[in-house]
Amino acid sequence: MGDKENQEVGTSGQENTLPIGTKSPITVTVGTKGPVLIIGAGLIGGSLGMALARQGVEVYLRDASPTAVSLAASLGAGKVWESGLPAPRLVVVATPPDVTANVVEASLQEFPAAMVFDVSSVKTPIVSAVLASAAEAAARYCSVHPMAGKEVNGVGAASADLFTGRPWVIVAHEKTSSAAVLAARTLGTDVGAFLIALDPQEHDRAVALVSHVPQLVSSLMGGLLIEAPVTALELAGGGLRDVTRVAASDPRLWNAILSGNAPAVKTILEELQRNLSDLIAGLDSGQTTSETPTDPWSTSAVGAVNTVMTRGNEGVGRIPGKHGDAASQYGQVAVLVPDEPGFLGRLFQEIGQANINIEDFRLEHSLGQARGLAIIYVIPASVEPLTAHLQGAGWSVASL
Amino acid sequence: MGDKENQEVGTSGQENTLPIGTKSPITVTVGTKGPVLIIGAGLIGGSLGMALARQGVEVYLRDASPTAVSLAASLGAGKVWESGLPAPRLVVVATPPDVTANVVEASLQEFPAAMVFDVSSVKTPIVSAVLASAAEAAARYCSVHPMAGKEVNGVGAASADLFTGRPWVIVAHEKTSSAAVLAARTLGTDVGAFLIALDPQEHDRAVALVSHVPQLVSSLMGGLLIEAPVTALELAGGGLRDVTRVAASDPRLWNAILSGNAPAVKTILEELQRNLSDLIAGLDSGQTTSETPTDPWSTSAVGAVNTVMTRGNEGVGRIPGKHGDAASQYGQVAVLVPDEPGFLGRLFQEIGQANINIEDFRLEHSLGQARGLAIIYVIPASVEPLTAHLQGAGWSVASL
Repeated sequence: MGDKENQEVGTSGQENTLPIGTKSPITVTVGTKGPVLIIGAGLIGGSLGMALARQGVEVYLRDASPTAVSLAASLGAGKVWESGLPAPRLVVVATPPDVTANVVEASLQEFPAAMVFDVSSVKTPIVSAVLASAAEAAARYCSVHPMAGKEVNGVGAASADLFTGRPWVIVAHEKTSSAAVLAARTLGTDVGAFLIALDPQEHDRAVALVSHVPQLVSSLMGGLLIEAPVTALELAGGGLRDVTRVAASDPRLWNAILSGNAPAVKTILEELQRNLSDLIAGLDSGQTTSETPTDPWSTSAVGAVNTVMTRGNEGVGRIPGKHGDAASQYGQVAVLVPDEPGFLGRLFQEIGQANINIEDFRLEHSLGQARGLAIIYVIPASVEPLTAHLQGAGWSVASL
Repeated sequence: MGDKENQEVGTSGQENTLPIGTKSPITVTVGTKGPVLIIGAGLIGGSLGMALARQGVEVYLRDASPTAVSLAASLGAGKVWESGLPAPRLVVVATPPDVTANVVEASLQEFPAAMVFDVSSVKTPIVSAVLASAAEAAARYCSVHPMAGKEVNGVGAASADLFTGRPWVIVAHEKTSSAAVLAARTLGTDVGAFLIALDPQEHDRAVALVSHVPQLVSSLMGGLLIEAPVTALELAGGGLRDVTRVAASDPRLWNAILSGNAPAVKTILEELQRNLSDLIAGLDSGQTTSETPTDPWSTSAVGAVNTVMTRGNEGVGRIPGKHGDAASQYGQVAVLVPDEPGFLGRLFQEIGQANINIEDFRLEHSLGQARGLAIIYVIPASVEPLTAHLQGAGWSVASL
């Protein structure tokens, strides 16, 4: 980071008025002299070390686990930190969230000239704790959230490209100096991420809504399958698979994150609970107490379902990007793909030869058969030419 | 259907002991003489007509809407039914679910020698209604559920290949003759589907669990986004997109299906409600009544989250096929793909040249940027060779 600047760090309390999310109009005070110290040699810490080391930045690593830190060093994420080394200009705390605030506070004390960042997934409790104890040193502290975690964790999954094209949320607090904000922005830009600025409460509410609650909803849906008959599961289609995909995520990765954001998560789950109760009440009033509905298509039941469905349409339509409206915006061509080496490669060679752009793509595996359907999303005008081209080349094409 | 057999239909009350799901050991009584009549010229009816017409079967179409039936006929789904034609050997009722039972009963009366099938998505109310009124004629009635509907509806989306590789659920009732079951099996096989046998209650509970409740859960999650700040939605990642993908489905398509299966759906939603309440209670006890948690990583909150996460793991692991365990079973290689024509085609040509089999694939669009990440799932041993091959060919590869 900061290769474009070469002044020394030492920023507490000055130039604290730069609005978050704007380019700095001032001469910046971010230095490049001195190394970067990363505390916590896991997926994020290791990946950050690799990304910085690749750019020639001197990176040191510290971890409570000697095994983790030497593994990270052997993977090219930096050198093992030792006492007596020059003080770092920047400390990035990438520890588990339940110890992050303490490590940030200790780092601000240990390295009185360094910027200190943390990369935790939940901000309010950590920023509050640091502000409560750090006093003036808090100006050197800025929180960032690289939203690049995956289903796997640990430095073994680390990569210098982990942050490429991913959100990098800058979470400044009221005492963060403009220099610290700029350093956080520069770091994110240098590792290929794109920048978003939120305050701690905004951040925690946002990730509760777009990450934590979807994870819990998916897991709750997955949990309903535990007692399901095998014959029922054989009917599972793309819908169930999509909804439950992240339910396969590692609980060890999520327990601390989700419980650490309990207030924001709980608020949203309570709204979900109210909407769910309304739906159940609507379905209930369409039937008697027995298993047999008196009127399976009662106005009440249809109305309750319609409310949930139309609200779902409206909400999902607000998600930026293509997926939310792929069904309406794009045409689909489904191709039967035997589950054998090379076929999918051949299919995409065919599509490449037809000179048709693929807007989106997903695989849907058939049940009880060793083959799948490749669903290709293209602009509506390309459905017919693509279908004709593929059929001409001998592929079995199913319109959707 | 039934091209392999050539005896005439006329089966009421005989050979009613063939177990569902076994091959017939007896000389079958399914005939091929006489046409097939499809009532309801929508997505399923039209697709079935196309699939049968392609095999040389004489297909007629009837629909309350003259426009729909002539559109279906012009698309090759069959000929428009007129009075005075030879009686059909098979009537397939593909109307909206709220009129299906009445149409089945009328068809059993109108065509006293024909098998009558319906293709509705919910079975208990329809089968019950038919059994209550049809008496002996019910032997000629078998319900089937081709699980091939998509986000779109209407004969305009119909295709002769709609059923290829999809589940075709045979839902016999206690009076269905073995000949009718065999005819339903033959029809499913002839259109390329794979067969599953369930009784009406099993069927409705199964589709509630694997189709209807996931749809509602996705829509409920989508509905939570209606009031979300745009900055929060900009953080949306693959998890939210997966969970809410089917929330974009057309309410008109789902309202009757979901409310028609209200008893089975409600039972599962009530279990969801209990699990959700337990989760909220667990999150609650980790904090005070204010917005600030006293202990964000309280044992209670972590325990409640862990229960939901581990149950989600267990349930999703029971879904057959690859997707449920893709994260653990396969390695992932992520490639930065500019959102420009031909790049994805070129990428798959590269992968084809590397002679590496793609186990699964998904696109993840980056936010605020006109490019995406292509996530390629391969067997673990292929991650390194694929990464090396793609990097050698100039692609920007991010390990996950």
